[in-house]
Order: sequence, then structure tokens, then C-alpha cells
Amino acid sequence: MKTLKNYINGKWADIEGDSYIDVENPSTGEIIARSPLTSRAEADHAIETAHAAYLSWKNVPVARRVAPLFKLLSLLQENEEKISRTLVEEMGKSLPDARAEMKRIFENIEVACGMPVLQQGNKLIGCSFDMDGEIIRLPLGVFGMIAPFNFPAMVPFWFLPYAIASGNTFIVKASRQVPCTMNLITEYIDKAGLPPGVFTLLNGDRAIADAFMEHPLIRGVSLVGSTKTCYEVAKKCAANGKRFQAMGGAKNHLIVMPDARLSNTIRNLITSCYGCAGQRCMAASVIVCVGDDTYRTICDEFVKASRKVIVTNPLDPKVADEEMVMGPVISAKAKRFILDMIETGVQEGARLLLDGRGLAVPGYEKGHFVGCTVFADVKPGMQIHRTEIFGPVVCIMKVTNLDEAIKIINDHEYGNGASIYTQNGFYVRKFKIETNAGMLGVNVGIPAPVAYLPFGGMKNSQLADIKAQGKAVINFYTEDKIITERFWEEEG
Amino acid sequence: MKTLKNYINGKWADIEGDSYIDVENPSTGEIIARSPLTSRAEADHAIETAHAAYLSWKNVPVARRVAPLFKLLSLLQENEEKISRTLVEEMGKSLPDARAEMKRIFENIEVACGMPVLQQGNKLIGCSFDMDGEIIRLPLGVFGMIAPFNFPAMVPFWFLPYAIASGNTFIVKASRQVPCTMNLITEYIDKAGLPPGVFTLLNGDRAIADAFMEHPLIRGVSLVGSTKTCYEVAKKCAANGKRFQAMGGAKNHLIVMPDARLSNTIRNLITSCYGCAGQRCMAASVIVCVGDDTYRTICDEFVKASRKVIVTNPLDPKVADEEMVMGPVISAKAKRFILDMIETGVQEGARLLLDGRGLAVPGYEKGHFVGCTVFADVKPGMQIHRTEIFGPVVCIMKVTNLDEAIKIINDHEYGNGASIYTQNGFYVRKFKIETNAGMLGVNVGIPAPVAYLPFGGMKNSQLADIKAQGKAVINFYTEDKIITERFWEEEG
Amino acid sequence: MKTLKNYINGKWADIEGDSYIDVENPSTGEIIARSPLTSRAEADHAIETAHAAYLSWKNVPVARRVAPLFKLLSLLQENEEKISRTLVEEMGKSLPDARAEMKRIFENIEVACGMPVLQQGNKLIGCSFDMDGEIIRLPLGVFGMIAPFNFPAMVPFWFLPYAIASGNTFIVKASRQVPCTMNLITEYIDKAGLPPGVFTLLNGDRAIADAFMEHPLIRGVSLVGSTKTCYEVAKKCAANGKRFQAMGGAKNHLIVMPDARLSNTIRNLITSCYGCAGQRCMAASVIVCVGDDTYRTICDEFVKASRKVIVTNPLDPKVADEEMVMGPVISAKAKRFILDMIETGVQEGARLLLDGRGLAVPGYEKGHFVGCTVFADVKPGMQIHRTEIFGPVVCIMKVTNLDEAIKIINDHEYGNGASIYTQNGFYVRKFKIETNAGMLGVNVGIPAPVAYLPFGGMKNSQLADIKAQGKAVINFYTEDKIITERFWEEEG
Amino acid sequence: MKTLKNYINGKWADIEGDSYIDVENPSTGEIIARSPLTSRAEADHAIETAHAAYLSWKNVPVARRVAPLFKLLSLLQENEEKISRTLVEEMGKSLPDARAEMKRIFENIEVACGMPVLQQGNKLIGCSFDMDGEIIRLPLGVFGMIAPFNFPAMVPFWFLPYAIASGNTFIVKASRQVPCTMNLITEYIDKAGLPPGVFTLLNGDRAIADAFMEHPLIRGVSLVGSTKTCYEVAKKCAANGKRFQAMGGAKNHLIVMPDARLSNTIRNLITSCYGCAGQRCMAASVIVCVGDDTYRTICDEFVKASRKVIVTNPLDPKVADEEMVMGPVISAKAKRFILDMIETGVQEGARLLLDGRGLAVPGYEKGHFVGCTVFADVKPGMQIHRTEIFGPVVCIMKVTNLDEAIKIINDHEYGNGASIYTQNGFYVRKFKIETNAGMLGVNVGIPAPVAYLPFGGMKNSQLADIKAQGKAVINFYTEDKIITERFWEEEG
Repeated sequence: MKTLKNYINGKWADIEGDSYIDVENPSTGEIIARSPLTSRAEADHAIETAHAAYLSWKNVPVARRVAPLFKLLSLLQENEEKISRTLVEEMGKSLPDARAEMKRIFENIEVACGMPVLQQGNKLIGCSFDMDGEIIRLPLGVFGMIAPFNFPAMVPFWFLPYAIASGNTFIVKASRQVPCTMNLITEYIDKAGLPPGVFTLLNGDRAIADAFMEHPLIRGVSLVGSTKTCYEVAKKCAANGKRFQAMGGAKNHLIVMPDARLSNTIRNLITSCYGCAGQRCMAASVIVCVGDDTYRTICDEFVKASRKVIVTNPLDPKVADEEMVMGPVISAKAKRFILDMIETGVQEGARLLLDGRGLAVPGYEKGHFVGCTVFADVKPGMQIHRTEIFGPVVCIMKVTNLDEAIKIINDHEYGNGASIYTQNGFYVRKFKIETNAGMLGVNVGIPAPVAYLPFGGMKNSQLADIKAQGKAVINFYTEDKIITERFWEEEG
Repeated sequence: MKTLKNYINGKWADIEGDSYIDVENPSTGEIIARSPLTSRAEADHAIETAHAAYLSWKNVPVARRVAPLFKLLSLLQENEEKISRTLVEEMGKSLPDARAEMKRIFENIEVACGMPVLQQGNKLIGCSFDMDGEIIRLPLGVFGMIAPFNFPAMVPFWFLPYAIASGNTFIVKASRQVPCTMNLITEYIDKAGLPPGVFTLLNGDRAIADAFMEHPLIRGVSLVGSTKTCYEVAKKCAANGKRFQAMGGAKNHLIVMPDARLSNTIRNLITSCYGCAGQRCMAASVIVCVGDDTYRTICDEFVKASRKVIVTNPLDPKVADEEMVMGPVISAKAKRFILDMIETGVQEGARLLLDGRGLAVPGYEKGHFVGCTVFADVKPGMQIHRTEIFGPVVCIMKVTNLDEAIKIINDHEYGNGASIYTQNGFYVRKFKIETNAGMLGVNVGIPAPVAYLPFGGMKNSQLADIKAQGKAVINFYTEDKIITERFWEEEG
Repeated sequence: MKTLKNYINGKWADIEGDSYIDVENPSTGEIIARSPLTSRAEADHAIETAHAAYLSWKNVPVARRVAPLFKLLSLLQENEEKISRTLVEEMGKSLPDARAEMKRIFENIEVACGMPVLQQGNKLIGCSFDMDGEIIRLPLGVFGMIAPFNFPAMVPFWFLPYAIASGNTFIVKASRQVPCTMNLITEYIDKAGLPPGVFTLLNGDRAIADAFMEHPLIRGVSLVGSTKTCYEVAKKCAANGKRFQAMGGAKNHLIVMPDARLSNTIRNLITSCYGCAGQRCMAASVIVCVGDDTYRTICDEFVKASRKVIVTNPLDPKVADEEMVMGPVISAKAKRFILDMIETGVQEGARLLLDGRGLAVPGYEKGHFVGCTVFADVKPGMQIHRTEIFGPVVCIMKVTNLDEAIKIINDHEYGNGASIYTQNGFYVRKFKIETNAGMLGVNVGIPAPVAYLPFGGMKNSQLADIKAQGKAVINFYTEDKIITERFWEEEG
Repeated sequence: MKTLKNYINGKWADIEGDSYIDVENPSTGEIIARSPLTSRAEADHAIETAHAAYLSWKNVPVARRVAPLFKLLSLLQENEEKISRTLVEEMGKSLPDARAEMKRIFENIEVACGMPVLQQGNKLIGCSFDMDGEIIRLPLGVFGMIAPFNFPAMVPFWFLPYAIASGNTFIVKASRQVPCTMNLITEYIDKAGLPPGVFTLLNGDRAIADAFMEHPLIRGVSLVGSTKTCYEVAKKCAANGKRFQAMGGAKNHLIVMPDARLSNTIRNLITSCYGCAGQRCMAASVIVCVGDDTYRTICDEFVKASRKVIVTNPLDPKVADEEMVMGPVISAKAKRFILDMIETGVQEGARLLLDGRGLAVPGYEKGHFVGCTVFADVKPGMQIHRTEIFGPVVCIMKVTNLDEAIKIINDHEYGNGASIYTQNGFYVRKFKIETNAGMLGVNVGIPAPVAYLPFGGMKNSQLADIKAQGKAVINFYTEDKIITERFWEEEG
């Protein structure tokens, strides 16, 4: 069993004292590592170290700041498989899903490598007579990032490479439940050639988050977590004059139009609903069928396909070649919550087409498995529709037309992702313009944008003016200075 | 005496009840108008009206949304002199300053007229095989704006034309003390051809601001006010999931290097320090001299030039042709505060080179005049250096080199504007990169950027990720939807 | 009968000598004006005058350079109807078409008014240690523009406002056949407040074009004309180190898919094919039907609808309220060419469904009218398919699938516009990506982009790297200087 | 002795027949390789192969197209020293100069790796009612590139990575005199994972250039060569409807102001004038001194410093640690031309302060060495000032003020680079705005922009509307399609 360490000022560091938390393999229930509970004082110290590093890092030309990112990209690509397996072991997602997570990391580094172009400001000759205007875009200082358990490696990279490339220094608080992957990645960051203090890894809990929100040297905080935590971060950061990007809960709807291509659509729905055992913030959990026929067909076919999903430990060699494997949910606690929600759905009158409770996975009896679960006849008022269940539980709803489908989405508290299945351009345009969700898919089940475009939701799914990832995130990590300049005339 | 009205849903509207506040001419003490105190219920109603207007305005093509702005621009240009005089009468700034305020309004409208270009999103063919990515930039809803007394007409236009052109609807809370100019401008907005409810004007106080921060249909709030109010707006908006742009206090430093061109510099300093009687958020109030000689010369020459400033009612026909006229401060209360601060400066040991207290302006004995006031030997610890006095009170400080000068600025709570006077490119570059203020000038006393560039400060001078004005403010008024799109293959 | 003049250095000027050409009303055959034949020496002189104006115009701040454009916009809007009627009288297009031409002029001025934003270059702090990079975008000098007869007013405005706003000076050679409208517009330009020499209007022929291509002070030439002339301009400009934008011939195809909405589509096809009597460079002249049923239906319905088009003098009061009026073609010579092409079509075996020859328009017997003409069974090899007829002659073709339809377009010499009629997103995407034409429409008959987007074709329809109109045309009218800057360290 | 091969369709290929040219080491006169003379038929075949590759490469998503570039970057970085030494051996530049050339290659690849961001087009929702506009940026086809001898590796990379990343295929014609480096680099390209035909290397002469300009499948040609060749390329490409970027001759001036920092300036001048033995297109060859004192001092100090330059074979182990080593010029023919020009200078009355003729380098008697040569009293009319000598021959001129200095530059046929030495911001601004050269330096001797900014000159130094390198070059390698799209309303 491995004992994790913090990475501060370019060195691996033990915490003082002896507060650790166990890291569990959710497929087997085994304890695979222990992670230190960093104290507030240690977090504060790390922030000060990162700030000291910032003072010289900001003056390194941007082209030199991206050089270590190119190096890191190579290192991570070479070790993709090792990191992916670590991720599966501690998180429970399937190996293909872990590899997909790695790919998105690579992409984000690639985009941030374009910083010498992205960070250019503007120059206007003649903003008035003999006077010029300039916008220069400079880094701000130390930024903190709080990682979630579901994408413990990818999510930090929505921010990290951009923050660093633009001249800031960056601290990741690893996921408390799933810290090993980010710790392993830090080993490669350590080899990439960044000066000490430019990147910092902290393990632990609340104390680190508090330090991020309160320490005066932190200039901004990024969080992917619950909507409740998002509001807390937003309020504290606003009160302390800090920037924030806070991504919260989601309940993603997929609209199926009568002209949707059935077999393609079903395959897509399955991947979206059950990938990561429904624990993706971009996972679909509500299927909205337009018209009676669509509803009937989708109910039948989706349940049929759901039954074929293999639920087991994704590292079990027997499933190595299977296309659709679903692992456990993250913890016993999470499992309990999901089972309770299924019971709630039954109580409030939804029709349980497929029941994932009581699933036993031979050989992995201590794993936190929940089987695929499907409800039909779900209505907007119901708790299973209002709540983000974060498990393999799917609600199917029926409406008579696209307007009604969009209304259901727009009335919902969350607005992260949404998709439509149709070949019809008119419906597509209406869906794009009227649906209040930040990331939209057309015949795409998980409309998570590539790293060349921003990532972010609306309403209670994201509290922030600036989204993550892509070329626009540079606005979060730089501040514009606007300069008005002239020189008095000299002779000659 | 005129009674002002609100402008709601395309109509001028009286308030219910009879709560009004007096509007005073600060040069004469006369009451020139009364302004209604809009109730919370009336404000809420106006917001709902603006939201109803939004629902159709957002679907008007952007090219048609800018047509009324072109029309408004013509109307305001034709009536520039009338509006300028109204502004002088109620605010007390000089007529050239009022005209300059109008020019900046025109500029901002002009930039917003470019919205059909600025609001374009992105399209990436082939974000994956047979799959495309799009960013589309759509408006959000109703935005509120709280106007300050010092630029009661210009500041709303840092936001208004952009908000409207991009498809939002917009409510201005006029300055409580200086509402007449914005009310007059609204008469021209009324003629510009906007659909009812797209623009709303409300007069009054706190109740409107509360409605902006609390009503669920308000999507964002812009404020120019005290830093204390900024923090309040920031916290409430964050707690309620609203966007905000909050511009607060300032204490702007001008650095004079030994090689500065003396006569140009002095002329510049005078305009910067005493324009609007020192009530500009971009006004300089601290002159930092590098080197003994510079310090001695600036003290002498600046005081000499300060004595020549004519202080009187700017509309007095006798001063129509004078270059540098300084009017009153905004109110008796403001005057008392300024006089107290002068006394404080004397108490804490600064050397009073010129004393503006006790000034009598013949013919305008009820006006709130304060004469030009200059302190030398000011030190960073002093209250007159820490406090935004918002009056014609100037602090002169001495340092031995540029690094010290920059340190004084960077250690200050505020970071709005700052300027350097030098011909030397090395000092200019150092100043630009190291000085923590949002708007920097090089041989420019009031480095307020033209409307083609953003406007905003740092530290406690601005709480917001996105600055006002210019092409970037579009980020505040639109939300990106990111779309991932494909279509299943058809035959042929 | 009016005698036109040149407009040089801010003054109306007669030519020396007595060479004039007649301007005819093509609906009536009347001579309505005479236009001077400017000599090469006069053209050279005008160029030198324009260059002298450039030397100070380039130093006027960009914000001041757009002020006259705002003024011009107002003037043209106020006189829209007068200008439109002049245009109809000399060109023969319908009044609604003339008004649409005016609208596009307004749009282009509006976009160019955004020049203070569009002309901003870039600034990169830290391109190396202590070194910064800048891109500044400066104007080049004098540009010439050769106007076509079909859009004698709009086409110059694809260039004029951008050239002037960015600091160049600009010379229009008015259309030889249709000069009156541009001459009338110049009267308003004269009132807009541009300094003398910034805008120049020349009337005449070949000598002016030669001056543009040969005079060393001309920095670039824009032409809309025949492909033959385009190649001549391209070669001469390249040989003389000048920039060029040369828009040539077109043969625009509309693809009708089986799922197209019939009634909407037919209405669209009629407008596209017969507007301006088929003399638009964006006019459709080939309808490609996918599938037998589509072909049969389109043939029937399109001929039916074609018969309803009213052909007469568009200024005849009797047709003031008619929706679809078609005027004459531009000249007797043009008419002869069109009639010859119809005969050729018959000879080469196309099936003449509707014959527009021999049309008599009572009351306008001297007008150059050709009736709506429709060929079916047109094959790719035929001359009526290969040739730009520039008259109301429509070819209908049949293919079995979209791939074949696209191949027909891609094999054609021209690639200006093309459209598809379908609701199906898959076909739309394939059409967009694979069709080699510069401007594409989806359910849009005349896919001429709004002024916020570029305008330009591919293959022999446009010879130039940079398209006209919109934000990108700024690249044609400015040259980037790239600056690498540092200053040696000074003390302090 | 190595025999070079072509690289066509992913394979190394011998030419048919037996036409080869010798490659010489200019430091020793040894023949180090022989390079095939590709025939026109072979070039045509390679173009067709590249076009076939284009047809599938264009459909590869842009993110996948940059993956091989990341790989190539790693490979070239790992083999930097080996490639650098090859370059020194065949070209004669110093090892530090060769390494600097490699660094610029890396930079250009890095920028092109940002293509997924750079190639994004635009999307405007609501360009009219229910209608949207799009700009999509698609590749064009096969591009050809003709490499010069002075930067035989770097110059192709101003184009290559951008062309390929944006979806085109690319053919380099290696420098005839200096082909080995590009051939070695192709070995790494071969390992980078590009599909066959995406990159092609051809060795030889005129026949390849003709194929580029004439073959209908070539869409654009990039050339760095003589101005005469540039005009030929421009004319042929224009006549054949091809794009072109043609960089020609240069004569770069450095202005020294009286306040310039002497020791820094002299060090800078030496590097700029003698690096690559004066064979850089960005090399300075004219020093313009403002004022008598400046002139006298610069003449003295520059000659003193010139005498210290070590001239020898740069690979001689004895000079491994020397800072400033100058190698031979490229060939016996080039040497003769330079010696003739020196004689011309003497004849036309310039004062020869330092004579580089008759230099003997012990141990390398067959090398083509020319010593540092300095002329004073050079006047604008002289041939040594008008001609690009491309050798270590420096002209010093005297003027009385900056205006005169700028006039000398602006009157010159070429306008590639120019620099000013001063600390004064006023002079810097005037220099930037008024000097007609594409690349400007401030206290920078070789103002070649980093790859994040464009590269290109003015006047006879560059014939093209679009510069090389940086984010703007994407305009050369893509064509915009502009789409106007709507869908007819469907129910619901």
C-alpha cells in the first residue's frame, strides 16, 4: 500500500503529523493507498511557495513557458497505459473510458501550447492624434484547483496547462477519494522541467479548499463539485475579490425525435447513460421521446440494450475485449444513495422497466456495483427527475413535440449538457438556439466539447462568467492592462 | 422645476405615491428638479417588463438590433450641446469636460454598432471524424446598471449599447444626485426606434439596486460606485448566480521621471488633478517625483500652475473662453468631507503648499466650491494618501528611483489608473509590466482608454473578471453554447 | 439630359476635350445622360491627387476616419428612394432589387465603421527575455476599383468604406454603361466631410483601368468583371507588384433534393433565376434535380411559376405593387447574345420548355426585354451549361444522387455560388464541405453573404487570396509591420 | 559521398537517368554529396501523388493532423545537434547560427500545432430572420515551396507545418546548393507518422519550379529567392490562378541615434552584419548614423570590433568556444561577386575602412572566405548601397536627423528589415510608423520575428498579400466558404 505525498516547491513532501485517509478500489473494496490530510498551515505555506515561484515565472517569455508542456505531453503519452490503469483501479471506470480521459488531457496540453499566440494583446496605432493604445495580457499570480473524483486527472487539465503557460503558478488539490492518478501524473510533471513552485500538488480535504478561498495570495479558484459547494466557492471568492470557475451538478437530457436513426441512437444512449456508471457530469440520465411511437420503441429497445451491459471489475481480464463494460460506483455511500433514489422513483409512481438493485458480481462481492436501471413514465415533478443521481439510473419521458421537450430542459435547475437525435435541420437549429444548456449535442450522446472549444454549463451547472478549456479560458488566467501612450515631439 | 419620470416599456411613467428627492445645481445651490423614489415593487415590475421584451428582442437579427443605435448616435450628436449644458448644470463639471463625456458616449455606441462582427462565434469543421464543433454566442436576458454621479451619462454607455446590441434588455438606475442628463438622453432613446422594454430608465435609490441584485430575472449587474458597494454587489450577485462588473474607488498616481518634459507635464498634471474638481475615477491625486530635482521643480511649478486655475460656476458666461475652469464639488456633504481630509493631512504632517479651504466664489456663495489644494512631503502611511478624497486635493511624494515609485502604487489598495512621464523606452516598459493598475498612461494624465479598448481597474478598483467597454465586454453580455454535431450517413 | 463629371480632389471636374458616351435607359431605349471618357493623363493626375491626400489621411486617427462614414450612412439612408429610382432607370432592375442593393451598401458602411476595432494589431509581451513583439496594421496608399454594370453602386461599397476607414484613399471607375447612380452617390460623399482627394470618382473606360494597373502610386486594384478581364488584371498587377481582388464570371447551381419543400423552393428559384433579369453574379441559372420525381415536379412547377413573372419597365406605375417584376437586360448587344445562346441550346439538343424570345412589351418596344426561358434535359457538355449567359435563361438537369450533383458543380469552370434545398442535416454537411464554390446557400436561392461575412468565389469566379467585404477585407487594405523591441537597462 | 534521393508518396525514390549535381562544403571545397536533378515528368508525378494524398488528408480531423507534428518536433529536438552540424558542413554558417535556425524550426512547428484553434471559422446566429451565417475554413490542395540556400531548413518550416496542419499536402524543392539538411530532416518527417504523399521532398533545379508554377494541381507556391525570380513566380502564378508568397532581396538599414548605448549597439551591429557571412535576408548591411559624433564613433568602434571577428571553418575544433565566428560564403561564384562589389565601392568613391579581400584562412585554402569589409562615406546613389551584396560588406552612412535616415530607407528598392538604436520613445514611434520595411527592430539587430508573429517584407522584398509564419499564414493555406443557411419551419 502506497503512501501519497504532497509535491511542493519542486519536491515531494510528507505532511507533519499522521493524518491520512484510505483510498479504496471500488471494484474490490481493497485499500490501495493512503493519502495525507494536509493542514491549513501546510496549505498556506504551499501557496506562499507558489507565489514566490510566480514572481520569476511571470517574467519567463511565454515561448519558454510552453516548452515544459511539450515535454510533459510526451511523457504522459509514453505512460498513457500505466496512468489509465491506475485510474481504473482507484475510480472504477472502464479502461477505454480511462484512455479517453487521457486523450482529453493531451488535447488540453496541446491547446495551451498555443499560448504564444493566444496571449497576444492588441495594439492600435492612432487611438487619437499621435497617441496609441495597447492591451497587454499578463498573468495574475497563484491559482487553486479542486479536483472531483469522477475525472480526477482530466479536470485539473482543463485549467492547469493554461494557467501555467500564461505565467501563473498552479496548485491542485487532488480528489480526496481518487488521488492516486493525479499523484502519478505529478511524477511526470516533476520530470517536465518546470521551475520549483510553478506546479504544486496537495492531498487532503476541506483545509486546502479553505486556504484557496481565503489566502490573500490566491488569485482565483476553479472547482468541479456539487452545486452547493459551487455557491460556497462563488460567495467566498466574491467576498475576497478572487476569480472563480465553479462547475456543479447536472441532469442531462437527450431528446429523441421521430426521425432519429434508431440503432445508432440506442448505441449512443447506452454509452452516454452508463459510461463511468453514470458518474460523468456529461452523462445523460433523461431520455425525452417525442411522440408515442418514439416513446414505445425507445423504451423497448433501450431496456433490451441495457440488459446487455456487462457489470463487473473493469480490470477483470475476462472483459478485456468487451465493448461495453460498466464498473462500480465510487463508494458504499454513493451506492446507498442511488438505491434510495431508485426506491424513491418507485414510490413516486415512475414505472421501473429495469431494476439494477440487488446485483451480485461474482468474484467482486465487496465492490460497489449497481446494475442498469430504467424508469419510464417519469414526470417533471418527480424527485428522480429533479435530482442528480450520479449512477446508472435512467429516466424516460414522453412529450408530444420538440417545444415541450425543450421546455422540460429549460425548466430544470441544471443546464450542463443536452442532445437531440434527428436528421432534420430545422429541429436542430431550434434546439441549438432555444435549449438552455451550455453544451449541446446533435446525434452525439456525450456532447463534451473537444479542448479547442470551451467547456461549461449554464444555470446551476456552472457559476462563472468564463468557461473552462479552450482558447477563451485565457481570459480567466490573464488580466488586461490598457495603455494609452504618446511621446512629446523631439527634434528631427 | 422639472419632475422626472421613469421610462418603462417604452412609456414615461409616474411613480405611485409621492416620494421624490431634490436635484441641486452644485454651483448655485438651487433645486432644479425632483426625481422619483421608485419602490421595490415598481422596480420588480420594470424588470419583468424588460424580460418580456427580451423574449422577442433576442430573436431580432443582430444587424437589425444595431439600427436603432445608429439612429440614437445621430440624435445625440445633434443634441450634444443641450445635453452637455444639462450635465454641467446638475453636476458642476466644466463645459469642455461635459462635451468630452458626450464624445465618449458616441464612441461607445460606435463600437457597439460593430456587434454583427463582434458577436460571431466559431465553427470548426472536423473536430473529430465527420463531426463539427460550434460556439454560438447568445444573449442572456435583463441586465441592470447603477450609474454614478460623476459621469452620470457616459458610464451607462460603457454597457448599454453593448447589452442591447447583443440581444439583452437593459435597465439604468440613474444617479440619485445627478439624474437629469440620463433622463434627457432617454428622450432621444425613446425616438431611436427600440421596441418597448428593451431600454428602461429608473430613478431613485437603494430599492432599485436591491431589485437588481435579488430579482431572479436579472442576469447581471454593472456598478460604478464605492468599493464598499462593489463588494456588496459582488457578494450578493455571486450568491444569486448573477454576473457582475463592479468598479470602485481609485487613487491614481502619476510618476514624473527626471527626463520628463516639464511644461507639457505640468499642463497635463493640472488637467488630470483638477478636472471635474478631482471627482473623476481616473483623476490623478498623487504625483510621485523621482529624484530631488524633479521633486523640487514639480512642487514649485505645480503650485504655480494650480494658482491659475479659475474656480467658479462653469456656466458663468465670463469663463466661457477660459481653458481651465474648475466647478464645485457635488454637494455640501462632499465638501465637508474634503475639508476634513485637508485638515487630516495637516495633522498627520504633510506640508500644505496650497490651501483650497475658505474659498469664496463671488456670485455663487451657495455653491460647493473647494480651491486647489496641494500637499508636499506626503508619505505612504498617511490617511490623505490612503483615502480616495474625490476632490481637488493633490499629494506630492518623493522617491529615489522608478522601482520605489512603482512599489508605492503596487502597495496601495486601489489600482485603477497610473501614468508615467518620461521619454525613455526602458522606463516605459518597466512601468507597463510592473505597475499593478488596470489603465496606464505614458505622458497621458488621464489614461482612460478609448472605447475601442476595455475600461477597468485592478485590486479594489474593480471586482469582476471582465472589464467594461470595447470589444471584450461582449463576453459579459453573451453566453457561449458549445455544440458538437454530426449526422448519420444517408445514401447518396 | 445630364452631363456627368468626375470628382477629383474634392471638386467636380469636367474633362478636357469632348469625348463622351451615352447612357441609355434599357427599358425605353432613351438616352438619359452622357458620361465623360476620362483620358489616361487625367486618370494619372487623379491618382497623384489621391496619393497626396493619402499622406495626411493615413495620420488621421482611425476613429476620426470613420466619422464621415457615419455621416454618409445617414445621407444615403435619407436619399435611398431617390438613388434607387436612378438605379432602376439606368440599369433596368426592379425597384425592390434596387432597394436591396441600397441595403447592402448601408451594411458595408456599418461594418467599416467598426474599423477602430478591426484595425487593431497585436502586442506580445515577452516574445523573448526583456523583448516584446508587435504587429501594427497600417494603410498602404491609393486603391482603384472598377465597377460592373449589374451592381454599379453596391459593388464599390464592398471595398470603398473599408479602404477609406483604414487610412487609404480610393478611386472608383464608375460603370461605363451604368454610371449615374455612382455619380449621384458621390454627391452625398461630397457632403460627408471627407478631406479632398480621399475619395475620387472617374468616368470612362479602358484608360482608367490601365492607369490603375500601371501607375506606380496605385497599391491595389479591385475589379468585378469578366473572368477574362480578371486574368488580365491579375497578371498586370502581379507584374507591377500590386495587390488585386478580381471577381469574374459565374454559373450558379441550385440542387433540389427529394425532401425539399416544394412551394418554398419554387418561389426561391424564381427569385434567384429571374431577379435583375438573370444578370446577378449570384443569380442561379442551373437547377440540378436529384431523382426522377424531383426532376419531373420541378420542371412542371418551375415553368408554371416562370410564366407568371411580369416582364416590363420596372418603373411603369402599373406594376408598382407587383411582387415579381422583371425588367430588360442591359443592352441591345446583351440581348442579342442571350437570344443566340437560346438558339445554341436548341441546336445542341436541350429541351426548350419555355421560350422567352420574341417577347413584345407594349409601350416599351425599344426596351431590351427577354422573356423567361427554361431548358430541360441539359447535360454537362453543352454550351448553355458551360457559358455564363447573364440573362433569364435557366437550365434544368437531372442526377440520381447528391454526389453526382456536387460533381457537376465541381467540374464547372466557375465556383461562385451554389445552394441546396433540403431539410436533411447530413446532405447539408456533405454539400458544405464538398462543393467547390465560395458562397453556399441552404434553402437560400441567392447565397450572397451579409456584409459581416466575406464575399467571394472560387476557381475562375475569383482571382485573389483575400475576399471582399466583411472583417477580413481589412487584410487587403492594410500591411502588417512586425516589430521586435527592447530597451537596454537603465538604472532604477 | 552520399547520394541524395527524393521522398515521394512516403518512400525514398531514385530518379530515372543519371543527372546529379555536386554539393560542396564551402569551408573546404570538398564535394560531400550529390543531389539528383529531378525531371519535369518526375515532378509532375510527385504532384499528382501529393494530390491523391490530399483527397483523404483533408478529411482527417485537424486535431489528428497535428499529432504527427508533435511527434516531428520531438524527433527534431532529439537530433538537433546532428542536423545542425550537417547544416554547418554544407552551408558554412557558424554552429550557434545553425542551432538558432533549428530553434526557429521548432517554434514554427509549435505554432502550427495550434491549428485546431487557428483554423476555426465563424458562426453568426441570426444574420437575418431565422437565418444563420457561417465561415468555414478548408484546405485547398497541393502547395509547393522553393527553398533558398541561406536557410535551407528553416525557411521551408515557415510554410510546411501550417500547410500540412490545415489539411493541404506539401512539396519542398530543396535548395540546389544546400540540400543535405532538408534531406536529413526528411528522414525524421518519414518517422513522424504522416500518411504517404502528405509531405514530398524533391531535389533539383528549374524543372521542379516550373512544375510548381504550371501544373494545374498546384494551388500555391512559396518562394524565398531573388527579387527577379519573385516577379517571375508572381506573374506565372497570377496567370495560372495560383496563390503565391514570394520573398526576394533585401538591404537592411540600422539607424543609430546619438543616444544609442554604444557598447550594446556595436555588439549588436557586428552580429547582424557578419552572421552567416552577411548572407541572411535579415542581415544588416547599412549603418545609418544620425549626427557627426555618432558617425565618427561608430566608424571607429565598428571597425575595431570587425577586426576581432574570427573567420574560418566553423567546424574547426579550435573555434568551438569562440563567440563570434564567421564562415565562408556559399560558393566561389558568390565570392567573386562580392569581391567585384568591393572594387565597385572603391571605384565609386566610398571610403574603404576595412578590406576583407585577400584573406587567407590557414588549413582551409579552398574555402570561399571573405573578410569583414567596411565602407564609410557611402551615399544613396552608389551601387554598393543599391545592391544586395549578400556578403560581409558593410556600408556606413551619415545623416543629420531621423527624418533623413528614414527617407534613405524608404527610397530604397527593398523593404525587408530595419532597426533603430535609441532609448527615446518618440523616435521609436516615428521610426515604427514611417519606415517602409516589413520587419522593424528597436535595439535589435536582426529583427526577424518569432514564429508567433508573421514574417515578411515590403516593396521588392516581398510580393504577396499574406506574409509567412505565424497565425496569419493560415489565410494562405485555407479558403473560406461562406454559408447562408435556413430551414423551413416544421411543426412542433
